[in-house]
Amino acid sequence: MFDQDGPVLGIDPGVSRCGYGAVSGSGSRPRAVAYGVIRTSPADPLADRLAELAGELDGLVREVRPSAVAVERVLFQNNARTAMSVGQASGVALVVAARLGIPVAHYSPNEVKLAVAGHGAAGKEQVQAMVARLLDLPDVPKPPDAADALALALCHAGRSGLRSATAAAAAGAAAAGTEVDPDARRHDHLGPGPARPVEGLRRAVAAALAREGGS
Amino acid sequence: MFDQDGPVLGIDPGVSRCGYGAVSGSGSRPRAVAYGVIRTSPADPLADRLAELAGELDGLVREVRPSAVAVERVLFQNNARTAMSVGQASGVALVVAARLGIPVAHYSPNEVKLAVAGHGAAGKEQVQAMVARLLDLPDVPKPPDAADALALALCHAGRSGLRSATAAAAAGAAAAGTEVDPDARRHDHLGPGPARPVEGLRRAVAAALAREGGS
Repeated sequence: MFDQDGPVLGIDPGVSRCGYGAVSGSGSRPRAVAYGVIRTSPADPLADRLAELAGELDGLVREVRPSAVAVERVLFQNNARTAMSVGQASGVALVVAARLGIPVAHYSPNEVKLAVAGHGAAGKEQVQAMVARLLDLPDVPKPPDAADALALALCHAGRSGLRSATAAAAAGAAAAGTEVDPDARRHDHLGPGPARPVEGLRRAVAAALAREGGS
Repeated sequence: MFDQDGPVLGIDPGVSRCGYGAVSGSGSRPRAVAYGVIRTSPADPLADRLAELAGELDGLVREVRPSAVAVERVLFQNNARTAMSVGQASGVALVVAARLGIPVAHYSPNEVKLAVAGHGAAGKEQVQAMVARLLDLPDVPKPPDAADALALALCHAGRSGLRSATAAAAAGAAAAGTEVDPDARRHDHLGPGPARPVEGLRRAVAAALAREGGS
């Protein structure tokens, strides 16, 4: 099931609406492979809705064959009313990924904003507009849950791109006998990083922001 | 899998410790069939821990063959720090129950306290002591997660007992041509109920409290 060259699947968990978005091609040319939402009916018992969600997510993961699943690290105090169902849907999604052997990465909302919109205080609409721009989509993906899931996938794809670039730089430096910070791969790709320019999402975000500023 | 004469399985969800407790014999002589906790290691990735929990719960339900699963309706604002993992474990437990065709009932902490200790403001220790007393256990079940799960099972078993008693009373009254409140079965078994005395947890709680007061 696990395909190391597969896309990154972002999941924005929820029981009524669970957003998903798959992004392939880490680096400067990310592409949306699939996105949408899984809905369950409020008329059904909660346990049945969660089981239905589990079945749908299982089918989605088998179809997309992602290299990784990216989910939000929810901060519950900001979201008390819907917190329970977000947690429940998130637990279901994580079990589906684990059972199919797909690695899971967790990102805070601020990490996603930073990666996709260039700063951690970006508004929701700003992040969604950047998702459309980075993925070269004609419109902002609807509903917002799908756009949020794509943002998560972009965040992870950007970091993976950095990790690859950093690993390549480290390998090159090692071959040349140069010392490289062994912790470089842990640096945020928008924070202090390796000395060489990093191809990838960072550059794409900067270019998109520049276009926006110049238009 | 579903056995309508099986015990009630209470589940107190958590990722580090998930309490469970199965109670058979709704009514005045409830009995603990099984109780304990499922633990997962904080050293493992969250998704793997949740998948392990799902597997353990699946095995437990197949073994216990419950007539119903009772879980807590968590109030998240009271519990912000652990809220996320409680929600995740709860989602996993609900999917296990739904997939095996077991009906799920949800109770608020106050409903459980009211059913087991006789009043909704009872302390945690008081509820746990009542669990031991009602189930005729030599000691309070340890860890507390197991006692909390048994309290949930007792709460549901008590209500089921009321429903049976109410249905029987209604059937008797209908046979005698007496009018019966059609909503009686929805009454809380500690609130206004049918005119006839209800055998079951309510009487057992009252007796236990009287013993306590008289000792």
